[in-house]
Amino acid sequence: MQKTLAELAAKINAEIKGDSHCIITGVSTLQSAEKGHLSFLSNAKYRQYLSATKASAVILTKDCVGDCPVNALIVEDPYYAYSQLAKEFIQLKKASPGIHSTAVIGNHCKIDPSASIAAHVVIDDNVIIEAHSQIGSGCVIGEGCHIGKDSHLWANVTLYHGVKLGNQVIVHSGVVIGADGFGIAQHQGKWHKIPQLGAVIIEDDVEIGANTTIDRGAIDNTVIETGVKLDNQIQVGHNVRIGAHTVIAGCAGISGSTHIGKHCMVGGGAGFGGHLKIADHSIVIGMSMVTSSIKEAGIYSSGTGLMKHREWLKNVARFRHLDKIIRQLQGK
Amino acid sequence: MQKTLAELAAKINAEIKGDSHCIITGVSTLQSAEKGHLSFLSNAKYRQYLSATKASAVILTKDCVGDCPVNALIVEDPYYAYSQLAKEFIQLKKASPGIHSTAVIGNHCKIDPSASIAAHVVIDDNVIIEAHSQIGSGCVIGEGCHIGKDSHLWANVTLYHGVKLGNQVIVHSGVVIGADGFGIAQHQGKWHKIPQLGAVIIEDDVEIGANTTIDRGAIDNTVIETGVKLDNQIQVGHNVRIGAHTVIAGCAGISGSTHIGKHCMVGGGAGFGGHLKIADHSIVIGMSMVTSSIKEAGIYSSGTGLMKHREWLKNVARFRHLDKIIRQLQGK
Amino acid sequence: MQKTLAELAAKINAEIKGDSHCIITGVSTLQSAEKGHLSFLSNAKYRQYLSATKASAVILTKDCVGDCPVNALIVEDPYYAYSQLAKEFIQLKKASPGIHSTAVIGNHCKIDPSASIAAHVVIDDNVIIEAHSQIGSGCVIGEGCHIGKDSHLWANVTLYHGVKLGNQVIVHSGVVIGADGFGIAQHQGKWHKIPQLGAVIIEDDVEIGANTTIDRGAIDNTVIETGVKLDNQIQVGHNVRIGAHTVIAGCAGISGSTHIGKHCMVGGGAGFGGHLKIADHSIVIGMSMVTSSIKEAGIYSSGTGLMKHREWLKNVARFRHLDKIIRQLQGK
Repeated sequence: MQKTLAELAAKINAEIKGDSHCIITGVSTLQSAEKGHLSFLSNAKYRQYLSATKASAVILTKDCVGDCPVNALIVEDPYYAYSQLAKEFIQLKKASPGIHSTAVIGNHCKIDPSASIAAHVVIDDNVIIEAHSQIGSGCVIGEGCHIGKDSHLWANVTLYHGVKLGNQVIVHSGVVIGADGFGIAQHQGKWHKIPQLGAVIIEDDVEIGANTTIDRGAIDNTVIETGVKLDNQIQVGHNVRIGAHTVIAGCAGISGSTHIGKHCMVGGGAGFGGHLKIADHSIVIGMSMVTSSIKEAGIYSSGTGLMKHREWLKNVARFRHLDKIIRQLQGK
Repeated sequence: MQKTLAELAAKINAEIKGDSHCIITGVSTLQSAEKGHLSFLSNAKYRQYLSATKASAVILTKDCVGDCPVNALIVEDPYYAYSQLAKEFIQLKKASPGIHSTAVIGNHCKIDPSASIAAHVVIDDNVIIEAHSQIGSGCVIGEGCHIGKDSHLWANVTLYHGVKLGNQVIVHSGVVIGADGFGIAQHQGKWHKIPQLGAVIIEDDVEIGANTTIDRGAIDNTVIETGVKLDNQIQVGHNVRIGAHTVIAGCAGISGSTHIGKHCMVGGGAGFGGHLKIADHSIVIGMSMVTSSIKEAGIYSSGTGLMKHREWLKNVARFRHLDKIIRQLQGK
Repeated sequence: MQKTLAELAAKINAEIKGDSHCIITGVSTLQSAEKGHLSFLSNAKYRQYLSATKASAVILTKDCVGDCPVNALIVEDPYYAYSQLAKEFIQLKKASPGIHSTAVIGNHCKIDPSASIAAHVVIDDNVIIEAHSQIGSGCVIGEGCHIGKDSHLWANVTLYHGVKLGNQVIVHSGVVIGADGFGIAQHQGKWHKIPQLGAVIIEDDVEIGANTTIDRGAIDNTVIETGVKLDNQIQVGHNVRIGAHTVIAGCAGISGSTHIGKHCMVGGGAGFGGHLKIADHSIVIGMSMVTSSIKEAGIYSSGTGLMKHREWLKNVARFRHLDKIIRQLQGK
């Protein structure tokens, strides 16, 4: 796999500074790059590594080009440009079409001949899998699921019955989609299960990180709209709706019936109470505790920030009585 | 599947207002309901949808009946009543009894002929599975496990050796029960594994959500008492005991040897330190950080609530020096 | 399985107080111990149970020996000493060497004849598994993985392509190693996937708890150094490095490119932002929110501690305006 800098520049409409015939054979970080590597500078934290890089070329913005000791591809958005070029250097083996002899397939399934069903997969009745989709080893697909085109379930994914996935959906290992939501009703001191009768709809171009769980709806469906990107170990409760092009980092939890708007960004470990509405374009900082709806776009946070434990103990002791102390100080 | 309103009312001892011959064919939310649907009103947030509902009937309390434009089933607890009626409309295929030809079964197992063992299940030696229990595809059951009657393991559940499940236990996909607890001892700068010799006991009527993990005891057992309901992605450390009829929402974490009382309610993402005792009937709000025992029932919280990031930064800067500032203000 | 107290004392260089011929048949806690059991006292919380223990012998420190009603093994570090002796009483069946007939093995793999590959395992091409390693039922091992000697993958573990595990590595069920990191670039309102081209390197003597996820590097590798112990449900982002002999408790999350030093201790549920550096020997208390680098070793915390909900509401209302209130009180 090798490309000239000119060929690569053409793909991303970059201006070349330096030798356009330079041969690129792979990608690397500024720090680790060797001869033949293409690198990029996007996060200012890494600018310190630019002057000493051994890359053959670096993708960067115009204002950094003066500090670049090697060939440069000048673009407005180096990270996006890198994302487009890095694809050229992937050498992942493509799964071959067809159904592995150890897979167990139910009745009345429609599996496109171009789809790939790996070893020890179990597919229940009435499942549809469209063209070029790949189902990794050990996946279990429940009755009546529908998987669109060009989607990829990595190994050991579980879909319960009636889950619908769109096209170009990527689901990583250990993900569980369509398990029962946490619907329980208390009666005479015991908790009784509420049947979970809805389904899960995952629209196109969604990616779901490893070990994330998305529960089926209680009555209506749980819906993940187009272009949403979910990181690992996220919990999505029943009847949640996540708006198009929203991204959520790892370990976040979204309680039942909360609707997150479109184009939101949610940091890792953030938690949302149930039955909330979060405005489009909201940004929620990692580990925030969201207990009421967010009505206008903005950046939201909670928590106290990190401090030395000894200081923290003293401050927390004050926080514990904050209202009382302030009333005393105010002479009220 | 269709029932008259009179038939349904009889099951939940409801008073009918309207046409008792009305035919019900399914359940739905107030907002999504169509002709033939039964809905319910339980959470006051949804009362706004009552007047425009297209449901054929609504389960509600006496005080809401005046606003209900359609037939009504009047009860004291609409959510519980709904939970009882919704069961009538489930159309889940029941797994057929017997052992799938691809399942691998160890020696000296006692599997009741009415139990269902799905494809690609692996069961180690000396396992007992009682009547009418279902083991989903891809489950792995360790040596000497015992699963009671009418229990249901969904696909891809893992039980380590010696785990005991009672009757009517539901375990969702991706759950791991009986992995080694986090027992390590430091010696000369290295950490040494403490053998984890206990087991896990899950009593009757427990439900365990997707990707939850429950570690085996270090010496004694980890115990989940009868009627406990655990949501998804909960971590239960070694030698934890969770008291009967306690419910815990998603992403909570309970460190080793902590005992949570009976009839407690724990919100999502709450974290418990190790070796604590939590009183019966305690309520812990989501994302709380529980670092000491709770000696009397009550409602407990921690954290700071959500605010605009710019405000938060200023407030946190003060929190960082809260003790010092208060001492200055107090003139001490 | 039975040993005399003298035999056991010899293994840990303990001083015996009492009957060195006493027969030990198992281990137990102080509270649950019966005749024949060896127990230990390490955590001061459990000293209250010493005087009534029915154990035949207790491992403890010199200063506790006066309160011990039974035989004693006197050592400096009872917990470590217990960890060494407990191994003697494990009765876990060792998996037999060889490849189960239902396992699916790719081309060009080198699997040592002493290794054990359990039922329904799937191993892709070019995988190396060294001597005495065990691969549990349902594991899926991606192309080109390399697993060292004496390592143990429990059931239903997933390794993506190109993951390297050292010797004596333990990986618990549900773990996913090598899934794509959360690398996305925004362009014209949509998010585009950054190909994740790095791998994951797990060095020797690492243990990884159930359902933990460790993402592959974006370009360079994600690295878990020797002797690291990770609890359950931890999320490790791409290009994270965790230094040797660091331990991390359950449900912690580490964002991409953060480097945690050697010999650190991280509490459960702690969260780390991305691109941080955490000094060697740092201690981060559970549920802390780490948003900037830690430059010197110490103990660090955040959060507010738990309080009665009614008090909390009042204090949080003050926190929400803390900066403003303090400025008013200071007359500024």
